[in-house]
Amino acid sequence: MRRWCRTGATLAIGAGLGAAVSRLLSPIGGEEEPDRFGLLSRIPVVPVPSVQASELTVSPGGSGAAMKYGFPSLANIKTRESYVISYDPRTRTASWVIEKLNPASLSGPSDRKCCEFKEDDSVHVFHRSTNQDYKGSGFDRGHLAAAANHKWSQKAMEDTFYLSNIAPQVSKHIGTHYTHINTTAVPTMHTLVLLFFVFCVKSPHLNQVTWNNLEKLCRSLTKRYLNVYVCSGPLYLPRQEADGKFYVRYQVIGRNHVSVPTHFFKVLILEQMDGRGVELRSYVLPNETTDEKVPLERFLVPIETIERASGLLFVPNIMKRTSSLQAITNK
Amino acid sequence: MRRWCRTGATLAIGAGLGAAVSRLLSPIGGEEEPDRFGLLSRIPVVPVPSVQASELTVSPGGSGAAMKYGFPSLANIKTRESYVISYDPRTRTASWVIEKLNPASLSGPSDRKCCEFKEDDSVHVFHRSTNQDYKGSGFDRGHLAAAANHKWSQKAMEDTFYLSNIAPQVSKHIGTHYTHINTTAVPTMHTLVLLFFVFCVKSPHLNQVTWNNLEKLCRSLTKRYLNVYVCSGPLYLPRQEADGKFYVRYQVIGRNHVSVPTHFFKVLILEQMDGRGVELRSYVLPNETTDEKVPLERFLVPIETIERASGLLFVPNIMKRTSSLQAITNK
Repeated sequence: MRRWCRTGATLAIGAGLGAAVSRLLSPIGGEEEPDRFGLLSRIPVVPVPSVQASELTVSPGGSGAAMKYGFPSLANIKTRESYVISYDPRTRTASWVIEKLNPASLSGPSDRKCCEFKEDDSVHVFHRSTNQDYKGSGFDRGHLAAAANHKWSQKAMEDTFYLSNIAPQVSKHIGTHYTHINTTAVPTMHTLVLLFFVFCVKSPHLNQVTWNNLEKLCRSLTKRYLNVYVCSGPLYLPRQEADGKFYVRYQVIGRNHVSVPTHFFKVLILEQMDGRGVELRSYVLPNETTDEKVPLERFLVPIETIERASGLLFVPNIMKRTSSLQAITNK
Repeated sequence: MRRWCRTGATLAIGAGLGAAVSRLLSPIGGEEEPDRFGLLSRIPVVPVPSVQASELTVSPGGSGAAMKYGFPSLANIKTRESYVISYDPRTRTASWVIEKLNPASLSGPSDRKCCEFKEDDSVHVFHRSTNQDYKGSGFDRGHLAAAANHKWSQKAMEDTFYLSNIAPQVSKHIGTHYTHINTTAVPTMHTLVLLFFVFCVKSPHLNQVTWNNLEKLCRSLTKRYLNVYVCSGPLYLPRQEADGKFYVRYQVIGRNHVSVPTHFFKVLILEQMDGRGVELRSYVLPNETTDEKVPLERFLVPIETIERASGLLFVPNIMKRTSSLQAITNK
């Protein structure tokens, strides 16, 4: 099963997967440039965010901020006590969430028991997920920025409970069962054909262990690195179906149709203690059962894989902040 | 077949479909507000696009611009001679494209034969579609901003041929066929069960006629309205599958995995000749065969339907520009 998942992910990302990581470290052409012609340039408008992602970095004086290495994209950015988030109003989840971890952020008196999942009322009601959407769905409310990363402040921990920082994550093992369904198929132009579908219904499984292990790894790395920047987000990966074509397929839950990601990514930007360089680790986990005995290294992927699949960019921003980037991959 | 499509669309949009259009005209609560606390407010950053969509409108002096009624979203906005576009790097197509039509824009010597589809090199190479992606896919390169809307300038017409203004659109009727596939199913924890799938493979059909009819309607409306603002974009709508749950499923084509929308929308903002008010017409067309004899009015939907499904907002912006908005629906 695990192999199937990994094969699916591999197939899904297509062109990105075969690429060598070293390619990422070479200058990347074709970055977005703001248009200098056309309507916007001729008409007075209130500030237009045509700035490219790789420009959006902070001054060195702003070290300590979660966005030191820039933003992977510029859409619907919000800031909270403990993280910066780019919200995707179509899927009702984040595109990405960035946090900064170090020993100071991990320690403190904050109590998770005082936190409650809450709607993000800064998001329009049409595009917001609610606790009701998750109720009875069979999916957990999975944190992107983890609560346990922000013990330094009760407010910071509470902010991780905004549902904009949450995505549906597989939870309980209900089992795999098969449903026998009689249904009408898609008709041809002239006839209506009755087909007998044998449809396999997959049920949620326990994934929390592996995801939690990855979160724990992020925290433990704060002992070996100056700062650990963590960017987490959902993926909706295509896979090849029986007709040989590739399809993206994912469930939506609740009245607001909250998207259930097929996978999640975590990108770790690790600052070396001597301040001389940066290491990069990028993981993709399927949003389904994974054997907890599989070492986390098995989920490492080239960063290009995530950049292609997510529509985000990490490396161009990071390269503006360091001349030494080492990508850690599962080689 | 058509009925099936329409039923699919109806089911897909869920909560939005039952809503009365009149509700759209009342003040909408819960709009996005920029955060005033958290990391960003404490750290010096290069301009952050936390401005809300409804703020991004032009001054009255800028009348004539495509963005007079604001932008439906603020992500990856680019401007071209003939339109303004919000690009979605994950799907490799636009989120929306806005154009402004009037008799002046529709007339001129521009020749479509001189135009060629071209990559948008302002988009990062990881997130860009190419002509090669469409080749042999069975899908046409469908315009969002239509070429024939911009005869006033050869450059304006050529700009509509950027592949960022293009999305895969069903084209040739190949026919509907059924494939009989023997495959392994998802295993339980202890067993591997062989299942016999009867899989229905749907092939592309001719949709250009209806979409072209809608484009023609937009142009003909310039005779009755002062200005016609047209916003077009893709939709990826969920539909209920055999297990009773809702899924989004769409094909991706080519090496770059260009998403094939399940539907397209067009929102028409029509300025009355006396300048006193604005009419709104919003259409959703399935990206598959439609009977050209079906009147376009049958594809009218409440604007809320599109706003919910697309993650965009139209009405709050429009209401900042007019006190009289009449939504035309298929009632």
